[in-house]
Amino acid sequence: MLATILHAAGDIRVEERPEPTILAPTDAIIRVTASCVCGSDLWPFRGADALIAPTAMGHEYVGVVEQVGSRVTTVKPGQFVIGSFFASDNTCPNCLAGYQTSCVHRQGVSGAQAELLRVPLADGTLVATPGMPEADLVPSLLTLSDVMGTGWFAAVAANVQPGGTVAVVGDGAVGLLGILSAKQMGAGRVIAMSRHASRQALAIEFGATDVVEERGDAGVARIKELTGGLGADSVLECVGTQESMMQAIRSARPGGHVGYVGVSHDVELPGLELFFSHVHLHGGPAPVRQYLPELIDLVWTRQIDPGKVFDQTLPLADAAAGYKAMDKRHAIKVLLRS
Amino acid sequence: MLATILHAAGDIRVEERPEPTILAPTDAIIRVTASCVCGSDLWPFRGADALIAPTAMGHEYVGVVEQVGSRVTTVKPGQFVIGSFFASDNTCPNCLAGYQTSCVHRQGVSGAQAELLRVPLADGTLVATPGMPEADLVPSLLTLSDVMGTGWFAAVAANVQPGGTVAVVGDGAVGLLGILSAKQMGAGRVIAMSRHASRQALAIEFGATDVVEERGDAGVARIKELTGGLGADSVLECVGTQESMMQAIRSARPGGHVGYVGVSHDVELPGLELFFSHVHLHGGPAPVRQYLPELIDLVWTRQIDPGKVFDQTLPLADAAAGYKAMDKRHAIKVLLRS
Repeated sequence: MLATILHAAGDIRVEERPEPTILAPTDAIIRVTASCVCGSDLWPFRGADALIAPTAMGHEYVGVVEQVGSRVTTVKPGQFVIGSFFASDNTCPNCLAGYQTSCVHRQGVSGAQAELLRVPLADGTLVATPGMPEADLVPSLLTLSDVMGTGWFAAVAANVQPGGTVAVVGDGAVGLLGILSAKQMGAGRVIAMSRHASRQALAIEFGATDVVEERGDAGVARIKELTGGLGADSVLECVGTQESMMQAIRSARPGGHVGYVGVSHDVELPGLELFFSHVHLHGGPAPVRQYLPELIDLVWTRQIDPGKVFDQTLPLADAAAGYKAMDKRHAIKVLLRS
Repeated sequence: MLATILHAAGDIRVEERPEPTILAPTDAIIRVTASCVCGSDLWPFRGADALIAPTAMGHEYVGVVEQVGSRVTTVKPGQFVIGSFFASDNTCPNCLAGYQTSCVHRQGVSGAQAELLRVPLADGTLVATPGMPEADLVPSLLTLSDVMGTGWFAAVAANVQPGGTVAVVGDGAVGLLGILSAKQMGAGRVIAMSRHASRQALAIEFGATDVVEERGDAGVARIKELTGGLGADSVLECVGTQESMMQAIRSARPGGHVGYVGVSHDVELPGLELFFSHVHLHGGPAPVRQYLPELIDLVWTRQIDPGKVFDQTLPLADAAAGYKAMDKRHAIKVLLRS
């Protein structure tokens, strides 16, 4: 089968690989309908994360169940399913508390940019849609595997409330879907921080009421200006750098909430500033499994259309071009059809 | 009048100073009944905080109103009052959100270890008791000015819930009153982290169900052992060092809450570890003004007795001995009678 392999920084190839097989009785094999390139895939692609060996890439996927292990009971061959980038048993105390990405039996899922994918802990990881989706729903369903669930968690972690004021740091796909999530949760004002025209347009389509082009201290000053000098009630941090984290913390009002979902890269939070900021801080790898039933319903009934973040679609064989387009920010997010 | 002045690290003296006067129409002058030495007073006493000039010490106080400015309407001469270590207007958006210590007109209160004290923004800062207190209630009422309100906020920030499991890092007066607070809020299990016999005894009297003597990684391992390998639902951080913050974060379960009230000293939180910890983090200078009405009622009706943290009482003139006793950890907390 075809699979996307990162051999070294900048060296990504789609090549023939052996088909995955059931290794544990709790595994499922799915035939991937669509996968995509994640902002976090760009870290190793750019050499920012160390690569020990050639790595099968991809952790966002939708597809049709091909085969299940002997102990899998909740999904069966022929069903269209969506799963998270972390496999979870969905029964341990951490899962039951809503933190499936801290499941005590957590396993990473990788190799989704391929024709077939092995998903561990299938019962706790995969959720079937009500039936086979219309073709135009596939992109939106695909986002639920990571990027939409992550934007949703950012908004939950930032305690977005009906009528509240929200600022979003980061105009990648996660930030844009954080805007959609905040809007869906009833936010009164949603301030997108973006300096790219095409992303600003999508931000507004998703519900942003204001756009701030400034970054860093100037961006914080603009957020304060827009919020009576106080800062936003909720700030979604969707980047993961020192600058973006501090911009988020400084943009929140005292007592406000920062939800951070950008995977931290060389971030050190200064204790004394955090202490006097009075912000609430919560985040981490989004427990997208928790949100799948609710978000599948919102997509299935066409109440939200997060698939709009895909501005480029390529056949799986052209995955390398997709990485390059996202690396250069020529594309917001690239969908790969298997 | 007598006042306590820090001249240099280790050089604390009680000496004659001019009496304070009304400077703004929103000021009040109170005759201090009792004040005390705070853990945070020890930072400059030990030279850990820079001292620019001789400083009038003390920010925890109860007393009788002596005089009020022309615009003060809610307290009047003769009333017994308690106030916070930060003066607040109690009307700005941050105050109304419950963060009086982030009041947009916030002013520090200092010089409380004296016979008389000027309190700015008296209407928003001082709360009168229902009448003149019995003498034995004075110590407990005094704690509401800072240390009890701070322990209470630590428990609020750590989201202590009925039946929940709570760990408390720090066995100073704030940590001990954090235990009392958690118990009062209905916590099912309260784990005190302490290696001092007298403090362990008071922790148990205040409601601790378990004592962990280990610190750092070993302390975290013990908390995990006591909580089914997961960590505590709520962790109160009442110290303010790098070690205590990391001990608190690592002792919380994924999705758990860390409430931190120890004033941060050289703390840098590692972003990636925080990200994968999945904890909620909230804290800062406690908005004790918010809690005064509720906590005055609990003390007045003798439902709680936080004054037990005072294990030494000295006349104001002997304040220097009080600093030394706390610095050497011979006393948990020293009350000064004016």
